[in-house]
Amino acid sequence: MKKAIILLSGGLDSATISAIAKSQGYELFGLSFYYGQRHEIEIDCAKKIANFFNFSEHKIAKIDLKIFGHSALTDDIEVPKSNQPYFENIQDDLRPTPITYVPARNTIFLSYALAYGEVLKAFDIFIGVNSIDYSGYVDCRKEFIDAFTNLANLATDITVKNNAKFEIHAPLVNMDKKTIITTGLNLGVDYSLTHSCYDPRIIDGKVYSCGRCESCRIRLNGFKNANASDKILYQL
Amino acid sequence: MKKAIILLSGGLDSATISAIAKSQGYELFGLSFYYGQRHEIEIDCAKKIANFFNFSEHKIAKIDLKIFGHSALTDDIEVPKSNQPYFENIQDDLRPTPITYVPARNTIFLSYALAYGEVLKAFDIFIGVNSIDYSGYVDCRKEFIDAFTNLANLATDITVKNNAKFEIHAPLVNMDKKTIITTGLNLGVDYSLTHSCYDPRIIDGKVYSCGRCESCRIRLNGFKNANASDKILYQL
Repeated sequence: MKKAIILLSGGLDSATISAIAKSQGYELFGLSFYYGQRHEIEIDCAKKIANFFNFSEHKIAKIDLKIFGHSALTDDIEVPKSNQPYFENIQDDLRPTPITYVPARNTIFLSYALAYGEVLKAFDIFIGVNSIDYSGYVDCRKEFIDAFTNLANLATDITVKNNAKFEIHAPLVNMDKKTIITTGLNLGVDYSLTHSCYDPRIIDGKVYSCGRCESCRIRLNGFKNANASDKILYQL
Repeated sequence: MKKAIILLSGGLDSATISAIAKSQGYELFGLSFYYGQRHEIEIDCAKKIANFFNFSEHKIAKIDLKIFGHSALTDDIEVPKSNQPYFENIQDDLRPTPITYVPARNTIFLSYALAYGEVLKAFDIFIGVNSIDYSGYVDCRKEFIDAFTNLANLATDITVKNNAKFEIHAPLVNMDKKTIITTGLNLGVDYSLTHSCYDPRIIDGKVYSCGRCESCRIRLNGFKNANASDKILYQL
């Protein structure tokens, strides 16, 4: 059975790639990060997703991205919110790069996946980036993934000296959110286990998403366009 | 004044690149890592080097490489030692890849440097890799550095959207240890501040290098060939 490393954020996209990799016959190994994000709800979701898809292993790396700052996801900068949950025109509405951008985040995540892959001899790395209905993060584009693949095969002992080849799978890269959700639902993903909100509230032990941050809005738009119901809780 | 990020391990090579960058007129910003290495002596050395060269800032990132294991530098695996400090023929004597290889280490370090560089708007990153008189680590080669440079310019907001260009400087890549040491001495490097040993002992508060691990042997060979004296303490 081929082994796949799944970069597992606990979000909708990483749940979908887990389902896709599983449907392709891979044995799944998850990698998540505590990186000084404001809340750890997404790590809990990552654990639930790993459990749901019967991952063989789920590693959680503690890494420090807070030391560089400059992102609303790691600093005490307010997460921008819209006064409405849905977009008029999603491509026009999204700003070039929101303050939720974390410098070099996907480069760092993939570097760790490479270390993990080399140790496990797992040469297929899945990452849930997508560049349609997204926030304009440059490290979510196919050009970036291709450059990382090239690097990966020059960076590790096992590829340079033992003829292995890493492949970075980004099956969602050209999908819009509607397609991602439809694909996932067809593969049996339980999206109620996932979390997307940048600014959730916990009330009586339950997680409520804000429905107004960019991540919530992209998610809500996706479910609306997929004619599907989003079963997580919102405090709209 | 142009800003440079210096990957500062506390070793001989990173002290040398600090001197080179300084001589080229850069303002210096250091980045070191606690990565579950067995001892923290090298972090102390990195601090001393940053102080010696008057760095404007020195960040120390705590990152977890221990979770993947598989290296004598992060696990309880014995560091291999020779029964003699000097090499007969350095290129023949070095094994293909020693157990001190840490999977994807330089990829991870450079990814962090990229995050730091993007935040600081410091587009020149210096790394002290070299591929002559070295341990056969694949992520010390020019091909690797070139692939990372290509990635860097596709991975960050500031390069993709604001026309900045990262350059990864690896000025030692084609130098042998003798040349590195001679270059550093000419630029005023105090190598007594540096540390290379994989298996040091601390006796009465003083650090003694083993003189038998590969890193010590490469260092000792370099000083011998440069006709220079190595002023750190050895327990030969």
